[in-house]
Amino acid sequence: FKVGLCQLSVNPDKNQNLIRAHNLIKVAAEQGARLVVLPEMWNCPYSADNFAKYAEDFGNGDLSPSFSMLSEVASCYRITIVGGSIPELCNGQLYNTCCVFGPDGNLKAKHRKIHLFDIDIPGDISFKESDIFAAGDEPTIVDTEIGRIGIGICHDIRFPELAMLYRAKGAHLICYPGAFNMSTGELLWELVQRARAADNQLFVATCSPSRDSAGSYTIWGHSTLVSPFGEIIATSEHEQTVVVAEIDYSKIQLTRESLPLEKQRRSDIYQLVDMHH
Amino acid sequence: FKVGLCQLSVNPDKNQNLIRAHNLIKVAAEQGARLVVLPEMWNCPYSADNFAKYAEDFGNGDLSPSFSMLSEVASCYRITIVGGSIPELCNGQLYNTCCVFGPDGNLKAKHRKIHLFDIDIPGDISFKESDIFAAGDEPTIVDTEIGRIGIGICHDIRFPELAMLYRAKGAHLICYPGAFNMSTGELLWELVQRARAADNQLFVATCSPSRDSAGSYTIWGHSTLVSPFGEIIATSEHEQTVVVAEIDYSKIQLTRESLPLEKQRRSDIYQLVDMHH
Repeated sequence: FKVGLCQLSVNPDKNQNLIRAHNLIKVAAEQGARLVVLPEMWNCPYSADNFAKYAEDFGNGDLSPSFSMLSEVASCYRITIVGGSIPELCNGQLYNTCCVFGPDGNLKAKHRKIHLFDIDIPGDISFKESDIFAAGDEPTIVDTEIGRIGIGICHDIRFPELAMLYRAKGAHLICYPGAFNMSTGELLWELVQRARAADNQLFVATCSPSRDSAGSYTIWGHSTLVSPFGEIIATSEHEQTVVVAEIDYSKIQLTRESLPLEKQRRSDIYQLVDMHH
Repeated sequence: FKVGLCQLSVNPDKNQNLIRAHNLIKVAAEQGARLVVLPEMWNCPYSADNFAKYAEDFGNGDLSPSFSMLSEVASCYRITIVGGSIPELCNGQLYNTCCVFGPDGNLKAKHRKIHLFDIDIPGDISFKESDIFAAGDEPTIVDTEIGRIGIGICHDIRFPELAMLYRAKGAHLICYPGAFNMSTGELLWELVQRARAADNQLFVATCSPSRDSAGSYTIWGHSTLVSPFGEIIATSEHEQTVVVAEIDYSKIQLTRESLPLEKQRRSDIYQLVDMHH
């Protein structure tokens, strides 16, 4: 099946972001994508003073136009949408949240970013997401019409343990909406997504906003699909674009038969424990 | 301090391999290397029918010329040697074993490859190390004059858990002697070493034989030093060569202060357990 990665341009006009997202999802669906992935913070320029202003309360349809639009579009095109992320307001707390919708338009899963992005490289970039957001407490793995999908948001990708939990739970694909910046983007973005795919022998799809986003935080772009062998199947530069590429799950089996890492793991020496079970 | 990676040419003449190894270690030492790393199987062409023939019993000086040479050379040049690997014969079992010697010539640690390399890609490469070798049962971390070093051999690098255990135990550097082949070499060699370094925010040094090794197994080469930020500090092509490069441990602290992954880990959600403790 085909996946579409919508590398959206995000600007301060929220309505325009919604229209643009709708249009790019339509482009992906018309090219045959049965799964569409949006970027992290696709309705809101990525900067500390915007998140509260653009936040939505999903419990109230009138107050969550982004949420409602994704639900309608998923049902209209009969596709699965991994809805990037938007700021969620819930009980007075802000979360960086990804909603997954099925082809019936129903919400199938909600992932709140687990690892908030606090960075301080003097003279380069300083950002403290944990000043604004509360962190999610749950890994999110969801059975969809196109396979079992694990969800991570941006900095979640830096932690191999989360991807390993998803592999242990049978994920075929991990989707990471992200908004890496120029520094960590160039150095680490391709590396970490290829590493999560190759180490866990599954597909990884990432989706970033395009670089022309408004705001102080300059985004790396380069939305990418990676195979279970760590190969880049399709990617983009930093402009607004839709990447449409083929996912063939039989490659997972093939990779695992040729190099049976799972069998070769030494559970007598180390074990990753899922603390919630 | 400087590290030297001796990307040796390995041929069927064991004595020549010993002389060549000695010569390259000397080159590295004369260029100021205080730590010298050798490749996996540096005294023995990498093929199933050779390992028993070239194996040494470390308990008996007369029967272990490779072991003795490394000890003498370490003491002669007052350097630490991570002695790649050679086939070890012990109680009738063969192991793929790395010996670490201090500047006094004493054996400081011995690592037996934990994850044996069994691969089967039809029409490309098929190899089953576990038919020949017994696997080691212990991670190996050793305090040397130039820091705390974790040891892995080749396929050990494919398992993020081992590197994570070493990080948890305070490793500054992980040395992986390896002999990746052409298929997995091109696809994965650089990727996995950069991933282990960046994910664990420590140095990674790899050392491979050169490609002109005799035998049926064609080797990728590309011995490399990687920084805690996942950057390649120095590397080589596939010919015989000595890579000498600077390791500055203050970069570990710098990387961890700018991006405090350790603090951001979610031990309430996942924990890697060291099963031996």
